[in-house]
Amino acid sequence: MKAVVFDNNLKLISDYNMPVPKSGEALIKVLMAGICNTDFEITKGYMGYNGILGHEFVGIVESVNSEDKTLVGKRVVGEINCGCGECEYCKTGLERHCFNRQTLGIWQKDGCMAEYVTMPIKNLLVVPDNISDEEAVMVEPLAAALEILEQLHIRPDANVLVLGDGKLGLTIALALSGAGLNVTQVGKHTNKLAITSQQGVKTVLLEDLQITKTWDVVVEATGSINGFETALALTKPRGILVLKSTVASGKEFNFAPIVVDEITILGSRCGQFEPALRLLEQKRINFKPLITDVYEIDNAIEAFEKNKAKDSIKVLIKF
Amino acid sequence: MKAVVFDNNLKLISDYNMPVPKSGEALIKVLMAGICNTDFEITKGYMGYNGILGHEFVGIVESVNSEDKTLVGKRVVGEINCGCGECEYCKTGLERHCFNRQTLGIWQKDGCMAEYVTMPIKNLLVVPDNISDEEAVMVEPLAAALEILEQLHIRPDANVLVLGDGKLGLTIALALSGAGLNVTQVGKHTNKLAITSQQGVKTVLLEDLQITKTWDVVVEATGSINGFETALALTKPRGILVLKSTVASGKEFNFAPIVVDEITILGSRCGQFEPALRLLEQKRINFKPLITDVYEIDNAIEAFEKNKAKDSIKVLIKF
Repeated sequence: MKAVVFDNNLKLISDYNMPVPKSGEALIKVLMAGICNTDFEITKGYMGYNGILGHEFVGIVESVNSEDKTLVGKRVVGEINCGCGECEYCKTGLERHCFNRQTLGIWQKDGCMAEYVTMPIKNLLVVPDNISDEEAVMVEPLAAALEILEQLHIRPDANVLVLGDGKLGLTIALALSGAGLNVTQVGKHTNKLAITSQQGVKTVLLEDLQITKTWDVVVEATGSINGFETALALTKPRGILVLKSTVASGKEFNFAPIVVDEITILGSRCGQFEPALRLLEQKRINFKPLITDVYEIDNAIEAFEKNKAKDSIKVLIKF
Repeated sequence: MKAVVFDNNLKLISDYNMPVPKSGEALIKVLMAGICNTDFEITKGYMGYNGILGHEFVGIVESVNSEDKTLVGKRVVGEINCGCGECEYCKTGLERHCFNRQTLGIWQKDGCMAEYVTMPIKNLLVVPDNISDEEAVMVEPLAAALEILEQLHIRPDANVLVLGDGKLGLTIALALSGAGLNVTQVGKHTNKLAITSQQGVKTVLLEDLQITKTWDVVVEATGSINGFETALALTKPRGILVLKSTVASGKEFNFAPIVVDEITILGSRCGQFEPALRLLEQKRINFKPLITDVYEIDNAIEAFEKNKAKDSIKVLIKF
C-alpha cells in the first residue's frame, strides 16, 4: 500500500506492507489524513519516531478482528492513544496517560498517512453523516483544544486570551468560543484572524495588544518561548496560563513571576473525541476555512512542503 | 531606634527615625523578628529593596492612630501585604495581589527588624496566649505554607512529596502534615529531616529516592532549577507541582513534559494568618525544633551570618 514514512528521511513508499488487525482491532481504509505540526516536528527528530506518519484521519472500517462486526462499513475517526487497558489511567478513561501507551504515528505505532491503518475497535467513533470528511479529519486537533475544558472550569464571565493564530491557535479559539466562552485571539496575520473573527471571536493584532496582567485565562499556542513569556506577562495574578504547545527555552528563564503572582500553568495535550464530534455535528463552529489545500496521496511530499509555507493553515491528504 | 537596614550594605543603625502611624495604623513595639531567605535574597539585590529589613514579627501594640483602641497592649502578628483597599483583589480578601500593594520589608515599606514598626490595624491579628513569641514570629512562613491549601484541594488519599529540607521545606511539610495530609519529605540532611519525621512526616534522603512519576502533588521548596527539574520528574501525569520558591533557570529548560503529562504548575506565595495561628494554638505542629538560634538586636549582623550557615534553619532576632 502507499504510505508516508519517516525513517530519518520523509518519503512516500508505494509498496509498504499492509497492516494486519490484531484481536480487538479494526482495519480501516483511510479516506483522508491531516498534517499536524507534530508531524513536522517528527521530521526534525521529535520523539525519535520512525515509521508511517500521521495521527489525524477519517476512514471506513473494512474489517474487524472481533466477533462484533457492528463497525464494518462505518465511517470512523479514532482516538490516537492506545493504552494497556489495565493501569489506573486506562481504567479511568485516561488512556492518553498510560505509561505503556502507543500513540498513532508518534510513538511505537504506525500512523494513518497510508491507504490502510489498524486501530483498537474501542478507540473508534462513528462520524455523524452531516460531518464532511474534511471536518472529520480535524476532530483530533479539535478534541485536543477541548481538552482544556475537561481539565479546567472556565467561568462564562472569564476573559480568555488565545495567543497565536496558527492552526493550533485558530482551533483553540474556535473550540472555546464554540463552547460559549468570551474569547479574544491575538496573532500576527489579519487573514488568519479573520477566520475566527467571523465566528464570534474578538481578534487583535499582536502589535496592537496592550501587555497588561488582566487576563483570567491565557492559552499559549505560539509554540515559542517568547510566546510563553508574553503569555505570562498577560496572565493576571491568580490567573491560569494554559500551555498547549511544547516549547523549549534556549535561554535563561525566570520562574519568579509564577510564584509572585501565583499563576497556574496548566499543561494540556490530547482530548476525547466525543465532545469534538458533537460540536461539529451541531454546527457550532465551521472548520472549513482552516483548510489551505487538499493533496492526493501521490503528492504527499508536496503537501508537507505546503504545510511549512507561512501562509498555510491546514493541509490535508486524500486517498 | 535600633534597626537592621539594607541600603546596598547590610547594617545595624542605632538612631533610625521612629515610624509614625498614619490614620488606621498601629505603632508596634517589636518583641521578636525572624530572618527569612527572602531577606538574604534582598541583601543580594532581590526586588531592588532599600530600607529596614524583615517581614516576620511578633510585637505589642503601643498605640493606634484610630478611635478604636481595642488592640492597644495586645500581642500581635501582622499580614505583610498592605493593599489599596479599593481594587478587585483587595475587595475579595486578596490584598497580597493588589497591584499597588506595599509589602513589609520587601517592597516600598520599612520592615520589622527594628524596635518599632507601623502596620495597618486591619492587618493585625491577636496572638493566643498559649503561643510563644518564638512560634508567633513564624506565623508568616507557616501562613505561606498553608497558602497551598487555600489555592488547591488536596485529597486526603493523595501522596504528597515536599522537595527540600531547608526552613521552607520543613515548614511546608509540617503545615501539610498538620492539616492531616499524607506527606513525604525529601532532603539531604538527616538532622533536619528528623524534625519532621518526629511529627508524622515520612522522610527520605534524596540519594535514596526513586525518581518515578508517581506523586500526586510535589512541592518544590529547594529554590534551585535542579530541584524544579527533579520535581517535574516526580510528578505523575495530571499531577500538580507546587512552585513555592522563586527559581530562575540559567540554562535551557524544556517545557514539553508539562504539556505531554498535562502537569499543573501552581505558583504559591503568601497566605492568610488565621489558619496558621489556629494550627499553632491547637498544638498540631511543633515549630520550636526549627529554631537554630536567637540573637539580641545588637548582634543582628552576626544573626545574618548565622542564617547563611549550612546547618542553620531558623534564626531569630530578639529586641
